[in-house]
Amino acid sequence: MVDMLSFDATDAEYIDELAAYVAVPSVSRDATQETMRAAAEWLAAQLSFAGGRVVETEGHPAVRGDWLGAPGAPTILVYGHYDVQPTGDLAEWHTEPFELTVDGDVIRGRGVTDDKGPVFIVLKVAQAFVEQEGALPLNVKFLFEGEEEIGSPHLPAYLREHADELAADLVISADGAMWRPSEPSLSIASKGLVTLDVEVTGADGDLHSGRFGGTVANPVHALSEILAGLHTTDGRVAVDGFYDGIPELTDERRAAIAAVPFDEDGYRDGLGLDEVFGEAGYNTLERLWERPTLEINGVKAGGKYTVIPHVATGHISCRLVPGQRPERVLQAITDHVLAQKIPGVRVTVRPDEGGVPAYTIPADHPAIRAATEALAHVYPGQEVLLAVIAGTLPATALFEEVLGAKTLFFSFSTADENLHAPNEFLRISRLREGMRAWEHLWRLLADGPHRLAPVIRDGSA
Amino acid sequence: MVDMLSFDATDAEYIDELAAYVAVPSVSRDATQETMRAAAEWLAAQLSFAGGRVVETEGHPAVRGDWLGAPGAPTILVYGHYDVQPTGDLAEWHTEPFELTVDGDVIRGRGVTDDKGPVFIVLKVAQAFVEQEGALPLNVKFLFEGEEEIGSPHLPAYLREHADELAADLVISADGAMWRPSEPSLSIASKGLVTLDVEVTGADGDLHSGRFGGTVANPVHALSEILAGLHTTDGRVAVDGFYDGIPELTDERRAAIAAVPFDEDGYRDGLGLDEVFGEAGYNTLERLWERPTLEINGVKAGGKYTVIPHVATGHISCRLVPGQRPERVLQAITDHVLAQKIPGVRVTVRPDEGGVPAYTIPADHPAIRAATEALAHVYPGQEVLLAVIAGTLPATALFEEVLGAKTLFFSFSTADENLHAPNEFLRISRLREGMRAWEHLWRLLADGPHRLAPVIRDGSA
Repeated sequence: MVDMLSFDATDAEYIDELAAYVAVPSVSRDATQETMRAAAEWLAAQLSFAGGRVVETEGHPAVRGDWLGAPGAPTILVYGHYDVQPTGDLAEWHTEPFELTVDGDVIRGRGVTDDKGPVFIVLKVAQAFVEQEGALPLNVKFLFEGEEEIGSPHLPAYLREHADELAADLVISADGAMWRPSEPSLSIASKGLVTLDVEVTGADGDLHSGRFGGTVANPVHALSEILAGLHTTDGRVAVDGFYDGIPELTDERRAAIAAVPFDEDGYRDGLGLDEVFGEAGYNTLERLWERPTLEINGVKAGGKYTVIPHVATGHISCRLVPGQRPERVLQAITDHVLAQKIPGVRVTVRPDEGGVPAYTIPADHPAIRAATEALAHVYPGQEVLLAVIAGTLPATALFEEVLGAKTLFFSFSTADENLHAPNEFLRISRLREGMRAWEHLWRLLADGPHRLAPVIRDGSA
Repeated sequence: MVDMLSFDATDAEYIDELAAYVAVPSVSRDATQETMRAAAEWLAAQLSFAGGRVVETEGHPAVRGDWLGAPGAPTILVYGHYDVQPTGDLAEWHTEPFELTVDGDVIRGRGVTDDKGPVFIVLKVAQAFVEQEGALPLNVKFLFEGEEEIGSPHLPAYLREHADELAADLVISADGAMWRPSEPSLSIASKGLVTLDVEVTGADGDLHSGRFGGTVANPVHALSEILAGLHTTDGRVAVDGFYDGIPELTDERRAAIAAVPFDEDGYRDGLGLDEVFGEAGYNTLERLWERPTLEINGVKAGGKYTVIPHVATGHISCRLVPGQRPERVLQAITDHVLAQKIPGVRVTVRPDEGGVPAYTIPADHPAIRAATEALAHVYPGQEVLLAVIAGTLPATALFEEVLGAKTLFFSFSTADENLHAPNEFLRISRLREGMRAWEHLWRLLADGPHRLAPVIRDGSA
């Protein structure tokens, strides 16, 4: 392969441009409409070569654009999101979350790797094609949403209403992440997601821990019992039915995973831990790629003063694997929690809407083959690993259902870059590597042995 | 007994005056030095008849005053505090916490019943004596502290340094509370207190719950296990050694408690609960008066987003009964928590300083007899119950140790008035009842059959 596009801007120039985008605190959970729109409009302006526009949907708006000047060539839909996670505890950030800051080889800021940086890369590639070659090698539709971090609640309706307009032979997601920095990787699956709250209430109001202590059930005790009861001591999820539908891990798959170079000690040390921990009977990589998980994401009750809090809440999320059905998992957890009869308190389980099943793409799909070749070109001499995204990309199952198209994850984020946590960062080198890889991916999908086959949808090509 | 003082101000006038004091947000946990001093200065000004003054101590200042114009009469030390608890969740307050608000028969505001209203009562009585009779019936020293709600960390040193200056035959505490509104009561004991934090840490930072979920121990899971393991399912504290030193509850004491009219259904309904709950083998009143407790006051970790929090903390407080030693209880809990080997996390226990043992005063002490008579006069036809304060008054054990003096709790707060919780209130009628009762208490202690005997301290009268 020959590099044909020039990416002439300096790193500093690219970073400056990206900084303006990161500076918009588009936290979908709690930002104002104006803030979310500002981020959407930044994107739409970048897509001016493709008629970029902010489109209203229920909830935060989406951004769309189309470049369809390659008749006869395949059509892809590029997906990403402009919303970001909350900052969490500001005291834990070493820099201002919304001020993109260069720190050695990386740039830090909320959203820089999830998903603003990776989207920025594809924008620069498309713009370079248009400027330098006057055309893209294939037809590209762009769809960026503003609600990915809250479970994409309004994307399903939008996709269904615009299914014809968005029809494509492949979705390429700029969201997702390479598994680790040591070599290039592609993801052939992502985990599903369900979330829920458990609320335990006691008296009508907080009570003095002396004047009422010992005579009423304490909601924090009760919540602790419930949360502690979600797992067995050997790390298995204790919920009846949680694992229903999951195929047994085959010896073949175990062997394939065992063949992946994985330094468990390095993984452990990199996280600052004394030991790893997880479901008995599986090693770390199997837990990460093949097994569903249940994690408590937060608890809240009372404070550092002498009360019996009258309400205690816990937030829980589960990552699902193929075979699990989101609504069944939620029901199983609800049943399990409510089956615990704890005297003196009331327990409420509140499943969140928008559960997402797990997703897979075959390892021999043309998109995986083309992407492997593009990455091999950008990272010469390194094997391209086929990995699993243990995170969740809610749109993928939906794209398959509504558009009949598989999704290729092609993100230049890396999973160790503090996604969803304080001090999120992106490796600066990924910007330029990503641009070059997208260039080749598009060329390979447009023509040659990896040319995309047209998707058959509703009986018509 | 004949009422001799006039309390001529209208309720509205008293409330207005008290409102100015409540308006100072003297939250000892987090107020500024200026705010704490403003509350102290309000008190000092009220004590101008007794040379009232703010005195520097380590931490928030104390307020002192002395009226010693009754040679030959007994000397009492009046104790109270000007600091208040944090407001907790402002959303749960029906009125502004620091704007004293009349609501039917009660006045609402943070600190109005703990302890600003009860202290206000004794100030008005002393002022009335001076204005109307030119003298108090006995010698009175006043000591108000600003750190009661944070465990009185600097009171011990202050008392020891000023033991001679503060010498008294009895301490009368304007802090404490009547047990319930249905009849007058006196307290012959109060529970002790120890508090501690448990912190569980995992990775160096918060982790994405997908990309790392299932492969590392979750600190919130671990904290939940620890907290759930502090009690057995029958409500007993599961900590080895927690109950050490506590005498068996005698049949005689059980019978005395059984003789106290107590409407358990009303207690339960008043708290908005479906059932009460506590240590097996004891009824509610026995749990409240005779048994030590361990309560989780708060938990904190992560939030409603998809992370594995890297730190989870719980705050715990225990109320102690006679026989328990604070430092031993803290050690037993620490040992219990650290004995749980939870893989993949680090557990730290942080006992707070300032543990307080339980306190008792004999039921036949002259102060209890005089106080019983004073209350019987103000609440004619009602029996005066001898109860236990299930809360903690850290100063009492200290007064006994340093001054050799017992403490009489003589507060016109009532335990149902949302102490330490949102919507704290005080019954308006208690203001006037309290003034009249203090008038008679002082007269009875000064002369007659209940005249206080002098305390023998360090071998000298």
